[in-house]
Amino acid sequence: MATINDNYLKLPGSYLFAEIARRVAAYKEANPDADIIRLGIGDVTQPLPQVCIEAMHKAVDDQAKAETFHGYGPEQGYSFLTEAIIKHNYTDRGIEIAPDEIFVSDGSKSDCGNIQEIFGTANKVAITDPVYPVYLDTNVMAGRTGTLQDDGHFEGVVYLPCTAENNFAPDLPKEKVDMIYLCCPNNPTGTTLSREELTKWVNYAKENESVILFDAAYAAYITEDDVPRSIYEIPGAKDVAIEFRSFSKTAGFTGTRCGYTIIPKTVKGRAADGSLVPFNKLWNRRHTTKFNGTAYIVQRGAAAIYTEEGQKQVKELVSYYMENARIIREGLKAAGLQAFGGVNAPYIWLKTPNNMSSWDFFDKLLHEVNIVGTPGAGFGPCGEGYFRLTSFGSRENTKRAVARFAKLKF
Amino acid sequence: MATINDNYLKLPGSYLFAEIARRVAAYKEANPDADIIRLGIGDVTQPLPQVCIEAMHKAVDDQAKAETFHGYGPEQGYSFLTEAIIKHNYTDRGIEIAPDEIFVSDGSKSDCGNIQEIFGTANKVAITDPVYPVYLDTNVMAGRTGTLQDDGHFEGVVYLPCTAENNFAPDLPKEKVDMIYLCCPNNPTGTTLSREELTKWVNYAKENESVILFDAAYAAYITEDDVPRSIYEIPGAKDVAIEFRSFSKTAGFTGTRCGYTIIPKTVKGRAADGSLVPFNKLWNRRHTTKFNGTAYIVQRGAAAIYTEEGQKQVKELVSYYMENARIIREGLKAAGLQAFGGVNAPYIWLKTPNNMSSWDFFDKLLHEVNIVGTPGAGFGPCGEGYFRLTSFGSRENTKRAVARFAKLKF
Repeated sequence: MATINDNYLKLPGSYLFAEIARRVAAYKEANPDADIIRLGIGDVTQPLPQVCIEAMHKAVDDQAKAETFHGYGPEQGYSFLTEAIIKHNYTDRGIEIAPDEIFVSDGSKSDCGNIQEIFGTANKVAITDPVYPVYLDTNVMAGRTGTLQDDGHFEGVVYLPCTAENNFAPDLPKEKVDMIYLCCPNNPTGTTLSREELTKWVNYAKENESVILFDAAYAAYITEDDVPRSIYEIPGAKDVAIEFRSFSKTAGFTGTRCGYTIIPKTVKGRAADGSLVPFNKLWNRRHTTKFNGTAYIVQRGAAAIYTEEGQKQVKELVSYYMENARIIREGLKAAGLQAFGGVNAPYIWLKTPNNMSSWDFFDKLLHEVNIVGTPGAGFGPCGEGYFRLTSFGSRENTKRAVARFAKLKF
Repeated sequence: MATINDNYLKLPGSYLFAEIARRVAAYKEANPDADIIRLGIGDVTQPLPQVCIEAMHKAVDDQAKAETFHGYGPEQGYSFLTEAIIKHNYTDRGIEIAPDEIFVSDGSKSDCGNIQEIFGTANKVAITDPVYPVYLDTNVMAGRTGTLQDDGHFEGVVYLPCTAENNFAPDLPKEKVDMIYLCCPNNPTGTTLSREELTKWVNYAKENESVILFDAAYAAYITEDDVPRSIYEIPGAKDVAIEFRSFSKTAGFTGTRCGYTIIPKTVKGRAADGSLVPFNKLWNRRHTTKFNGTAYIVQRGAAAIYTEEGQKQVKELVSYYMENARIIREGLKAAGLQAFGGVNAPYIWLKTPNNMSSWDFFDKLLHEVNIVGTPGAGFGPCGEGYFRLTSFGSRENTKRAVARFAKLKF
C-alpha cells in the first residue's frame, strides 16, 4: 500500500497569512466602510520596467514564426541571459563566475526550497530566527528535523536568534552545523550583514566544512557602499557558498517568475565513501532532471534589465520603493516607534511598543488605524515583539499609512 | 561537515542524448556537407497558435500598467486557466474535478519529477521498460531504489516490460507495488492503453492500495474514439490515480512552459500511524512551499487554447504533426520496417531489422541516409532492438526523411 512522506505531518498549517486574512475579513465584515491599507505581504505593485515589456513583446513575436520559434532551451538558462548576469553582477564587481556555475530558474523560492535535495538528510541545519519560512519547511519535509517543540522550534535544527540585542547579526553556533541559511538583505528584518560579519561566517564554514546557502534576493535594494552585494565579495566564499538571486523584487517579476542560483564548482560536500563531490554537479543533475528551463519569453524580459536603459529603469523602480521605505521608517520614528531595516532592504521591522505581542499589535493597527502588517512572531519565536511593514505599496498609500501612524496612541 | 545526497551517485550520466550528439558531431566532422535530418529529440518546431500569441501580447501589456499588473498569483494557478481546463478536459467529458484538485505548474517534467516527494521512501515503485527517464531518475535521487545492476535495471524497482510481444501493454506485476508510473499515450513507444487495459490497472491499484501516476502529456494526439483521454474515464480511477497534463506538445509550449496535475482528494496514502492522508493536501503543501506559481503571461497564453478559435488552432497544430506521423509510419512500412505507434501519439517506435542493436541501427541510419533518431535502448533494456522517430519535424523534412528510408538497404 502506498505510504506518504510522514515528514509533511510535522508541519503546522501555513498559519500566518491565513490568520491575517481571517482577522482582516472579520474586521471588514464588522466595518464594511473601513479603508484598509495593506503593508503586509511582500508583493510588488508597480508595473514591469518598459525594457522588459518591449523585450517580451518581441519574444512573443519570436514564438509566432517557425524561423524564430524557441522550443526546449537549455535547462540552465539561455546564454543571452546568463552571460549578462555574470558580467553585470559578478565580473564587473571583480568576481569570477564560470558559465557553468549559474542556473536560471523560475524563481528563488523554487531554488531555495529545492537546494536541500542535493544534501544528505543527516546534515545539521542552521537558520536564523526570525526567518523566511521556506528554508525551514523544506528541510522539515525532507526529514532533516525532528518534530515541532512547544517553544516553536523544530527538534534538531539550530536556530540563530536575530534581535535588536545582537543588531540582527546572528552569533556563530556553539555546535557544528553543516548547512547555514543566511538571507541578506534580510527578510523579514530588513537588515544586512556587514563585510566583517559575513567574513566571520565564511571562515566558520571553511573551518567546519559547512555550506552557506546565501539568499540575496533583495541585493538590488542595498544603498550603502560598504554592504556586500554578493557573498562572493568575501574572500574564500567561493569554496563554501551557494548564492540565490531573483528578478522578483529587482524588476517586479513576482508574477513573471525568474531567478538564478550560483554554485561555484569549488563548493563540495562529502560522499559516504569520504570523497568530495562538487554540489554544482549534483545540482546540474537535479536541474536537468526535475526542471525544463524557464520560459524563453521570461528570460528575454529578464535579460533586458542589463542594458543601459534597463539598468536605469530598474534603479528607478527600486528607488521608488526605497523612498517608500524611508517615508515609513521616518514616519515610525516620528511616531515614537523603534524601527529597523529599510535602508538596504524594502522591509521595515519595528519593535512593538510596551512589549506588546506582535499579534496584539496587529489587532491594534487594524482596529485603530486600519493598517495591515505582518506579526513578527509569524517568522519565528524571536520575531515575537516585532512587526514587519513593507515598502512595496504605492507612494500614496504609504504616505497615508504614515499619517495614520502619527495618530496611533500607545 | 556537509554531506551530499549519496543517491545521486547511483545515477549514470545522462548518456543518451549526449552520446547521440557525440556521434552526430563526429559524423559531421568527417562529412561536413552531409544534409542531416533530425527526427530524434521530442521537441516541437511549429510556432505557437495565434490565439496564444495574441493572449500573451495582451498579458505583457497588463504587466506594463499598475492597474492591470499581476504580482504573485495563486501557486495553484489562476482560475481563468484552471476553470477552462476543468470544463474542457473533464466536465465536458463527464468527469467531475473540483477547483482545488488541479495544480498548474511550469510543466509536466517538473510535476512528474516532484510528485514522488510526497510519498514515503519505502514505497515500491513500478515503471515500464522502456520508459521516460524522469520517473526513474527522480526515484533514484530520493533513495527509493538500490544501485544500478548489470542488466541495466535498478535494484528494488519493478520493471514492466513493454514489447511487441505484449502489444506494449504491461502485465500486472507479480509482487505488490505502491507507485505505478504509466505514460499514455506512451513516450517512447507511441502506443496507448485501451480502456480494458487501464481498467485492469485501476482495479489492481484499488486492490493493492497503490497509486497510479498517469502521465497524459500526449493526450491531445489521441485520434481514435475508444482510447481514454484521461484515466478518470475509468471507473474508480479517482480513488487511485494522479494525472499529469501538459501544454508542451498540445500547443507547442516546450519553451513556454505550462502544465498541470490533477489530484482528486479521494487519492490517499497511509501515514506511519495508520491513518489515511489525501495526497492532494500534501501536494498543496509542497506546491505552495517549493513553487511560486506559473508566470501570469504564460497562463494567459495557455488559457487562450480553450476558446473556440483556440481549439481550432490547436487541432490544426496537432493534425500537422499527426500527418507527419502517418507519413513516417506508412513510409517505414513501405520500406519493409515494422512500425508501432504514430496513430494516437507523435512517436513512431520501429523494430530494428534483423535484430540489429538499436545503436547499430542508429549508426546505419546516420551513415547511410543521414537521419538521426533515438536508439530504443536509451529508454531501458527492453527498448533494445527498437528505435524512436518523432513527428515533430517540418513536413518537408519528414517527407525527405521517408524518401531516404525507401533507399535503405537491410
